[in-house]
Amino acid sequence: MNAEILCVGTELLLGDIVNTNAAYIAKELAALGINLYHQSVVGDNPQRLKEAVNLALSRCDLLVMTGGLGPTYDDLTKETVANYFGLPMQMHEPSLERIRFFFQKLGREMTPNNEKQAMMPKGAHVLTNNYGTAPGVALDVQGKICILLPGPPREMQPMFREEVIPFLRRYSKEMFVSSTIHIFGMGESNVEQILHDTMLKSENPTLAPYAKDGEVQLRVTARAHTEQEAHAMIAPMIQKVQAVLGEYIYGVDIQNLQNAVVKALQQNHLTLATAESCTGGLVSKRITEIPGASEVFHCGVCSYSNDIKESVLGVKASTLAEFGAVSSQTALEMARGVRALAKADIGVSITGIAGPDGGSEQKPVGLTYVGVSCEKMETVLELRLSRGHKNEREYIRTLASSNALNLVLKAIQKYQESK
Amino acid sequence: MNAEILCVGTELLLGDIVNTNAAYIAKELAALGINLYHQSVVGDNPQRLKEAVNLALSRCDLLVMTGGLGPTYDDLTKETVANYFGLPMQMHEPSLERIRFFFQKLGREMTPNNEKQAMMPKGAHVLTNNYGTAPGVALDVQGKICILLPGPPREMQPMFREEVIPFLRRYSKEMFVSSTIHIFGMGESNVEQILHDTMLKSENPTLAPYAKDGEVQLRVTARAHTEQEAHAMIAPMIQKVQAVLGEYIYGVDIQNLQNAVVKALQQNHLTLATAESCTGGLVSKRITEIPGASEVFHCGVCSYSNDIKESVLGVKASTLAEFGAVSSQTALEMARGVRALAKADIGVSITGIAGPDGGSEQKPVGLTYVGVSCEKMETVLELRLSRGHKNEREYIRTLASSNALNLVLKAIQKYQESK
Repeated sequence: MNAEILCVGTELLLGDIVNTNAAYIAKELAALGINLYHQSVVGDNPQRLKEAVNLALSRCDLLVMTGGLGPTYDDLTKETVANYFGLPMQMHEPSLERIRFFFQKLGREMTPNNEKQAMMPKGAHVLTNNYGTAPGVALDVQGKICILLPGPPREMQPMFREEVIPFLRRYSKEMFVSSTIHIFGMGESNVEQILHDTMLKSENPTLAPYAKDGEVQLRVTARAHTEQEAHAMIAPMIQKVQAVLGEYIYGVDIQNLQNAVVKALQQNHLTLATAESCTGGLVSKRITEIPGASEVFHCGVCSYSNDIKESVLGVKASTLAEFGAVSSQTALEMARGVRALAKADIGVSITGIAGPDGGSEQKPVGLTYVGVSCEKMETVLELRLSRGHKNEREYIRTLASSNALNLVLKAIQKYQESK
Repeated sequence: MNAEILCVGTELLLGDIVNTNAAYIAKELAALGINLYHQSVVGDNPQRLKEAVNLALSRCDLLVMTGGLGPTYDDLTKETVANYFGLPMQMHEPSLERIRFFFQKLGREMTPNNEKQAMMPKGAHVLTNNYGTAPGVALDVQGKICILLPGPPREMQPMFREEVIPFLRRYSKEMFVSSTIHIFGMGESNVEQILHDTMLKSENPTLAPYAKDGEVQLRVTARAHTEQEAHAMIAPMIQKVQAVLGEYIYGVDIQNLQNAVVKALQQNHLTLATAESCTGGLVSKRITEIPGASEVFHCGVCSYSNDIKESVLGVKASTLAEFGAVSSQTALEMARGVRALAKADIGVSITGIAGPDGGSEQKPVGLTYVGVSCEKMETVLELRLSRGHKNEREYIRTLASSNALNLVLKAIQKYQESK
């Protein structure tokens, strides 16, 4: 089965938003063993949308579209596809109910143009949208399969996982099952060098790396007839990778560092407190993304000035005067201070220079100290996170927060070892 | 002039990397007043690459391509385009020199396949690459303009700014200038309903909405010969929108709420402190995204437990006992508490139930209180942010933080009014 992705939206065409949908869907299709030959973007223009749909359906078996399912006059994706197949549009009552309910919940008046979102091509399999108003559409007509999904990734991604993948599985006898090995603290090219031969030779399961926000994920994908069978093929590959990269692996299928931290804290009945300067609350924000974080996380302090470092966290004025706010000594006192303030088992701290301003000869942009304080260990890491590019502020903050989370995992390990 | 972007690379097709090049180039072309109607991605496959180039050149005047300029056998972009126009390939000595020099600097042996990168279609204007080995190409033949650039953004972006923009300026008499009106507190369909006729009728300037993270942005785009002229056309449209949506508009061309807040605090010489429960530091994280936030923001407390609300923020035990952590009273005491703790002019607070767990009959998931305390006003908003969807935690947190930032803007207004 050959697939094509067509993303509809003038905001994509104008470059107002980056097309993450295409990459997400492409990855999922690859995991399903479906070939993808083309990705296209077209604006909310009826004629060009029609041409793009005609072209795509002339060269693919499966067309996945995103965007243009909304309530406004220029949302024309469903209508255009229905037109191509000569299908009339019909009101889908359950979807209309859902949209009405949505507006009731918001206590808002439902404007008439919202009803448009419940109109469906005749014979369409409706893809429920539990994440927004616009339902999706799956069509299997005249030898072509069309999947129409809303544009916002927050809606599109879970719909793809929950509705589209099961729908597409019917069309392939074999299934693809993946596990992701999460690596932190080693660059992608390093990982590739070490595993180069294994990756090249790997066929089933395959082993593929990809880098994301300063982390590397290794995706192990097995093609099999049952999930059991697939997992049995995946396990040895994971062991093989663990044997070479063990210390850099923070989890398998664990989603991300914050999830690994919250889970590890829960399992070990430990609590964490955070003290952040340059990351400004990013670490506590990431930890509290995880439902249930409240069990293990009670307090985070964003001490963005020296005064607050002193008055709230109890960093010594002499320390700030002698070594400065961005120093190993300040980082350690911040970690100790917030740990005491929150009566937590583990205190973690970050102080650094995220830039673009504030750097100097001795303390350049990107210089960051990450500290941890707990019964089992006290340590501070010095990091130099700048790659010398422009606009690195967010990159530096993200990497600093990831290093802090990783350091917390190391601290938790010490508790486990001492059991 | 109608443009098209064609990005070449199997890694894009597999979704291993997100296509940021298309968005970057699209934005730059829009700024140059060049219409963009299509973006496409194709893999390193000779036949499909050829078809994609043929299709693109059949419908555009300007084709911008990225990727496939490298040294390996499957880098075929230049050759494919040269072929289309029947141009022979020639060695470009200065480029060859540059590539040799590049390898010398790295102290590496230059492998012969790298010479391929210096081969250029006859009559090509070579785009120097000061950021990597592969030079770019600008062609103006048979009424078509082709721009070929390397795939890595850190090479492509500066080359586009330094080489491509000056090259393209020659071709466009008109330019497009856009302004974005930022709206908070009104849904997209509502905005669209109110401005429906204006949007439909708008031609120059055009008015187009799009929704993002619970906000609505209205983009006003004017086509003119000078920037001055364009801004003169944009201004009345902005006034027209302000006349209808005034109270919901938090800024024009201000990027986002956090930027509006930091700028407004700076202009009014005010400082802010944040106390967050369910958002877990998201507000302070957003504020500290903005360079220079340290002038106006010194302290954020993530008080995720009742103990911390009491011990750090000074919320009364009786308040927590009587009304609970998620209550108007607690929100107000949190805002007062953090304002006092940080000796800030304005204290803002958030307490709510982000879910998925923790909801009840009386206090459902999504119930959120946002409080502000300053000399000029003290108020608490009760929000019900759930739309009844799954996995709303991040949505609820984002909207709660946006409402808090918007409330801070209202507080700052009070200071301005009292001047």
